[in-house]
Amino acid sequence: MKLSDIGEFGFIERFATNFDHMIADADMGIGDDCAILSVNESENNVVTTDLLIEDVHFLKNRISAEELGYKSLAVNLSDIAAMGARPLFSFLSLGIPKSTEVEYLDAFMEGYKQLSEKYRVPLMGGDTTKSVDRLVISVTVVGQCRKSEMRLRSMAETGDLICVSGNLGDSAGGLQVLLDKLELNTGNKDLIRRHHCPEPRIHEGMWLAQQDNVHAMMDISDGISSDLKHILKASRKSAEIHLEQLPTSQRLQEASSKYNWSIYDLATGGGEDYELLFTMNASDFERLNREFENRFSRPVHAFGKIVEGKPVITWYKEGVEMNPDTAGFDHFAK
Amino acid sequence: MKLSDIGEFGFIERFATNFDHMIADADMGIGDDCAILSVNESENNVVTTDLLIEDVHFLKNRISAEELGYKSLAVNLSDIAAMGARPLFSFLSLGIPKSTEVEYLDAFMEGYKQLSEKYRVPLMGGDTTKSVDRLVISVTVVGQCRKSEMRLRSMAETGDLICVSGNLGDSAGGLQVLLDKLELNTGNKDLIRRHHCPEPRIHEGMWLAQQDNVHAMMDISDGISSDLKHILKASRKSAEIHLEQLPTSQRLQEASSKYNWSIYDLATGGGEDYELLFTMNASDFERLNREFENRFSRPVHAFGKIVEGKPVITWYKEGVEMNPDTAGFDHFAK
Repeated sequence: MKLSDIGEFGFIERFATNFDHMIADADMGIGDDCAILSVNESENNVVTTDLLIEDVHFLKNRISAEELGYKSLAVNLSDIAAMGARPLFSFLSLGIPKSTEVEYLDAFMEGYKQLSEKYRVPLMGGDTTKSVDRLVISVTVVGQCRKSEMRLRSMAETGDLICVSGNLGDSAGGLQVLLDKLELNTGNKDLIRRHHCPEPRIHEGMWLAQQDNVHAMMDISDGISSDLKHILKASRKSAEIHLEQLPTSQRLQEASSKYNWSIYDLATGGGEDYELLFTMNASDFERLNREFENRFSRPVHAFGKIVEGKPVITWYKEGVEMNPDTAGFDHFAK
Repeated sequence: MKLSDIGEFGFIERFATNFDHMIADADMGIGDDCAILSVNESENNVVTTDLLIEDVHFLKNRISAEELGYKSLAVNLSDIAAMGARPLFSFLSLGIPKSTEVEYLDAFMEGYKQLSEKYRVPLMGGDTTKSVDRLVISVTVVGQCRKSEMRLRSMAETGDLICVSGNLGDSAGGLQVLLDKLELNTGNKDLIRRHHCPEPRIHEGMWLAQQDNVHAMMDISDGISSDLKHILKASRKSAEIHLEQLPTSQRLQEASSKYNWSIYDLATGGGEDYELLFTMNASDFERLNREFENRFSRPVHAFGKIVEGKPVITWYKEGVEMNPDTAGFDHFAK
């Protein structure tokens, strides 16, 4: 049997529970955006790690070294944000082909440092080693969070609104621009920038986690059609999504119209948005949204509801049920 | 300029101090076996991470999947031992070529789990992703230590004996057996086992760290001729080593004699011994060695002295100064 027969999640399931008997009750291992390590009665540490491999996660001739350094840290900070935690420290391991230019590595570290400084997250260690032919990047970030403010995938409640902290699909649009080698006008450059330099929603995550009426939370790395299912499985709930309520940027709408993209496919399945996906008590939405906008100069967006049932998403467009699993959203694009 | 022009340490030096202004006084970043994160007034967390890449750090057809899983964790636990710390948690990221057999991965995880159980270090998370053609393994381990028992590379004192927790060179001998495809008799199999399944000296490290007269400590990954220099640099001291006092196993002595290996080259430069290298007050050596042997059923070995001076090693054989930097130890082997 090959790994491709069972997939990465299938492999993880084969060993994920094998370590449970060693894990203390106050801690939590595999299954959320971060592992949770209890520090004392009121505080947790959270830990996340991501492995990025050249030609799998990035193409060296499509992203600058500086952007790659930035993004390598950003995707990990986003996992910390998803817990409602504050990042404390990072660790960086690099597997580097011998022929790599030192100037390339300096630029990589410059991008990494820029984001480290923005959120005051010092690089504390790592490992630097040779690689045969591809650049390998492994980043680990440790964060901290009050126990009362920790937000898990398992916390969704029936009746919750499903919300997101910003627009969806821009990153996937940027990737499309790169792959199709489209013109680099202002709008397309913005999309590429969202793909290469996602902003980890650290401050938003910490603020949302302080709101009692915010329940489940995670970050969007694979796209909501995949990521939301993790919340549904962990919370044992079902979801209804209204496609026309998905927030998308004007630049993505314009590009989708121009290049005949399915904006719903990009917004639900493109991934790498690194916005926060969260569920919350519907009755508090108006207040929360007003305060969020005051603080962060942009609104949150509700586009669906948590309901009782199996961990599946039912998709609606203008009230009509859709079945994207068989045909994607292409058939009702635009 | 290529990476190969400046080496990995040269690259690390280019950015190592760029993050210092973000690091709190009680913490410590790049420069020892682990990073140090202060938990409270009396306790530190320590963190280490290692990246292992197929065809650089291991050959898939030379080490079994189970041994590889074991060793991936062992080399990290050894760094925790070097601080005098207790390991708490591990994180494992795998980049896996699509064609990998699931049975291979199961065996890898079985080896990883065996060592996890031995030291009660649960796997708490990680990342599983595709790789193009080579297996990539990144392990991070978090440990804990009393501040008063933390042992750093910078703690060596003039007059200290230089000691090691066990025999040197077995691992390098095992690698030689594999590379030269030598007969698999009992002695050679033992050497290979020391190469594939090193025992992290966790209990020894914690015990040594409790001895006031033990000063600097680190683990031996590259071989003492390279590793000891880290202690000398950090402590701003010089060292005198007596080659004939280096501890080697009978099986390595026999194999070296049979295959005409330079046993001193293996013992000083082969690396991957994962024994603890430490310096201590000479006047307490006899007592410490007796108690260590009572507890761990084997002695520690002193083979040199810390002296004032530049961070270089002066090598002696039977009182005569040697110069291995120009010719290795080959010319005075046996």
